This record gives sequence, C-alpha cells and structure tokens, in this order.
Amino acid sequence: MAKKDTVSVRDTLRIGKGVERHHPGSFPIGPTKKPKGLKDLADAGDRLAELQEALYAEGVGGGNRSLLLVLQGMDTSGKGGTVGHVLGLVNPMGVRYAGFKKPTAAEARHHYLWRIRKQLPVPGQVGVFDRSHYEDILVPRVQKLVPAAEWRKRYTEINAFEKELTEAGTTIVKVFLDISPEEQLKRLKARLETPAKWWKYNPADLDARAQWNDYQKAYADIFAKTSTAAAPWYAVPADRKWYRNWLVARLLIETIEEMDPKFPPAGFDPETELKKLEGVGVPG
Amino acid sequence: MAKKDTVSVRDTLRIGKGVERHHPGSFPIGPTKKPKGLKDLADAGDRLAELQEALYAEGVGGGNRSLLLVLQGMDTSGKGGTVGHVLGLVNPMGVRYAGFKKPTAAEARHHYLWRIRKQLPVPGQVGVFDRSHYEDILVPRVQKLVPAAEWRKRYTEINAFEKELTEAGTTIVKVFLDISPEEQLKRLKARLETPAKWWKYNPADLDARAQWNDYQKAYADIFAKTSTAAAPWYAVPADRKWYRNWLVARLLIETIEEMDPKFPPAGFDPETELKKLEGVGVPG
Repeated sequence: MAKKDTVSVRDTLRIGKGVERHHPGSFPIGPTKKPKGLKDLADAGDRLAELQEALYAEGVGGGNRSLLLVLQGMDTSGKGGTVGHVLGLVNPMGVRYAGFKKPTAAEARHHYLWRIRKQLPVPGQVGVFDRSHYEDILVPRVQKLVPAAEWRKRYTEINAFEKELTEAGTTIVKVFLDISPEEQLKRLKARLETPAKWWKYNPADLDARAQWNDYQKAYADIFAKTSTAAAPWYAVPADRKWYRNWLVARLLIETIEEMDPKFPPAGFDPETELKKLEGVGVPG
Repeated sequence: MAKKDTVSVRDTLRIGKGVERHHPGSFPIGPTKKPKGLKDLADAGDRLAELQEALYAEGVGGGNRSLLLVLQGMDTSGKGGTVGHVLGLVNPMGVRYAGFKKPTAAEARHHYLWRIRKQLPVPGQVGVFDRSHYEDILVPRVQKLVPAAEWRKRYTEINAFEKELTEAGTTIVKVFLDISPEEQLKRLKARLETPAKWWKYNPADLDARAQWNDYQKAYADIFAKTSTAAAPWYAVPADRKWYRNWLVARLLIETIEEMDPKFPPAGFDPETELKKLEGVGVPG
C-alpha cells in the first residue's frame, strides 16, 4: 500500500522503447474497487478544477502556458467518455476540444499538421485532441495508403512539432487508452444492440478490429519513437471505465501540479480600489 | 405549489417590451432553499446531459440543429460560474465556449458581427457566448463611443442576424443574469479581498458600476427591441448562485426538450453487423 501512495501515476504509466504496458484489465496503482474509484475521482475532480482555474487565471494574467491532452486508442476505447467524465470536471471556459476524423477533401490537400495547428490551445487553456496527428502515421501505415518512407518520416516531424509546442509553453500529455480485444468485442456488441448508440458505430470499425495486431504494432512503434521527455506517452489500462477516468484525472493533476500555475498578481492596488468601491456606493 | 410545477421556467422568466423583471433576489419558480436547489440541479444535470447527447448524436447523423446560449449581465453577475456549473454538467465534446472581451484592434476594423460569426456552434453543438454582440449596443451607447444612430440601427441588424441563425437550425436562448447593485458590491469586495480572485477584477469595473442606471436602461431597451419569438430574452434572478444555476439548467432543458433531438437511425443493418462482428472474433 505504501508503494501505491508514493509512486506517481505518471511514473507508473509512462511508456516508451522497451517498456512493457500494463494489462488493460490490471490495476497497477490506486483504487481497485469501483465505489472507492468513484469517490477518488470526485476528489480528484475538485483538485483538478482548482488547478485548471489557476492555469486559466495565469493565462488571463499574461502567462503563456497551456496544457494539451492527446487521446488515442482503438474504437470504443473510451475517448469520448474520458472527455465527458474527466474534462467534464473542470470549467468548460478553459477547455478546448477538437475531434479529428478522417480528413476532409479540403484538409487532405494541406500538410497533415495544418488542421492540427488550427486547434491548439491558447495560453491558459486545456486543449483536448480526440484522435490527433498520430492518426497520420497509424492509418496510412496500416491501410497502406502511402509509401512507408512517407509515414516513417512523420515520427521525426511530429517530434519536432511537439518540441516546438513545448518550447512555446504547451505541456503535452499523450494518453493511449488501452483496451483488450475482448472488451472491445463487448462494447461493439453493446453499440449494435442499443439504438441510442448506433450513431457511435461505423461499419469500418470492424475492418480496424480485423487489423487489431497491425494497429498494435503501429502503436508500439509510435511509443518507441515519439515518447520523448518533453511529450511522453502514457498507456492507461482502460477495460474499466471508472478506473480509466481516475487514471487520466490523476495524470492531469500530476502534470499541472508540476507546472505549478500561479494566480497573477494584481495589476492595481487592492486597497485603493476598495476605497473607490465604497465611494461609488449603491446606485439606483 | 401546483402552480410552480406546471408553469415553465421559460414562461416565468421570458421578458420583452413592457414585461416586469422579477427581483434579483426573488424565487419566482422552483426551489427556494439551497439544499433542495443543489439536489434539483444534480437531477437537472442528468437530464441535460441526456438531451445534449441526443442533440450531439443528431448532428453526427447529419442533422443541422444546434443551440446557442447567450450570457449577458453586469460584472460579477456570474457568467463564468454559470458556464462552470451548468455547462459543466454536459460532455465538453459538445460544448463550444466563446468569451467576447473588448474587441482587439484587428477585430475593431471588421463589422462587429464578424468575430461573432466565427464562433457560432456547428450542428449538434451547444454554443455558449460569454458576452456577445449585445456588448456592441451596450458599450457604445453608455460610453457614448459612436453616434446614437449607429448603435440604434444594430437592434434591427441583430434581429435579422438572429433570424438568419434560427432559420439555419440554431435555437437561441438569451439569458440576462440579473443581480442587484447590493449583491454586486459584495462580490466586488470579495474579489478585491481575495488574491486568488484578483485576476477577475478590472479597475474599469468601477466605472461600469458608476453607470449602473445607464446600463440598466440600455438593457431594458435591448429587451424591448430584441426579445423576439425566435430568440427570446430571459431574466434570471441571479443574486443566489445555486438558484441561478438551477434556472439556467432548466431553461436549457425546456428548450432542448422542445427541439426534441433524435438519435439518428443506423446507416447500416445492425443484425448483419453483429454477425460480421462474431466473424472477426478476437485477434491476437
């Protein structure tokens, strides 16, 4: 137990070259039962909201820092649910959400980073990418849409792009929502059996499922090549939704705590303003 | 009590020419005690999240409808708090927040609706305007920045603009967060006495407070001229934060219930897909 309390979620889940991922159904750190997990998530929500407000305030005060959460994962891995249950804990004023689907014809005529750049968080914001520029390695590779040399050079391009962002003040947290193929089977079934979930289903999801191992291989290479010190990847065991939510909330908390955002100083003299305020009195 | 349950929040708070506003500290409908109000807000949150998901799904399915919440009010009236506590109840995926401050030099060279149009919700989204195009009547009028003929013609322009939006599928809910000058005094004091709130304070807030009656007059004219059937204004008694949150949540619920968004039909045959899914099996 002592170990679980002192080791950070970031250190536990960080991945890269040669680092094994935890099983999607495992509990490598933190709560192992749902009631405790939900209570811990509510507590984490209060802390996260507090930290996010400080980051937002710092931005209003002229600071240049922001946070970017990149969410990747196989279909049904819970990207939308994570946005709802984790980002839903903070004030939407400070959240900028961007979902990246298959590029439109107009987008496809540009460099693949063009549409990404347009959605970056501004100072003080928490940006959330629901899928991202990593799709521009995954999909062309697995579906063999471009020559290998083309998607291979994107590792280097993306590392340079992310370095540029971090140097400009954006802290990047890249999360892989890791579900097992067994759990995906259950979730796809549930989508097909529930009319209110049909809108989330696409027949192409089955093609991607049939290529499960190819995608896993492509992800492993992405982690090996793009989990940098500046922009690390975290693999979140995501077979249990409540546990996934707690882990992502903790990743964000630990990250913003390290950023240590500060409420800006007053650009005025509070005492003088208080006196003036009394002078204005109550109109009407 | 029966009356309170059968009368809608929209009918109770809708304003316009010759309609008296309720006092900012009054309870014209719904809960009158904080514990009940907080419980009712939590219930409203579940319902609102459900309705917002259906609206979002409808948009994914090709629907053209969206919702736009316009928030106006004097300084400290709770625009940011309303965004956090009410819009925070739904999935941030479907929320588009836009705050409109004093126009930048670049914005000021364009028509005042230029920057507004860039932030409109797309189909399926709930857009939130924290201040809006109504500032382009209020501020020039009270601060005498342009000739009266200039801001007067904006009533007509704005009515035409909002009609255009509603015809294109956007339902508009315009909310005036109505606080008393006594309550504003308390809140400004609290801001000045709390370092973590200094970032919300601007010395110009006192100038606006000194012009309280001018702003109230300008708002009254806005309500008389722009509370249309297509885009009505609601005055929300906002001296109590928990009550304000419940009222705004109910306004959104009643509005989306009337829109009656539908989960889209399947663009595939669910039975066939279920069979295919079994065929794919579990990889790895």
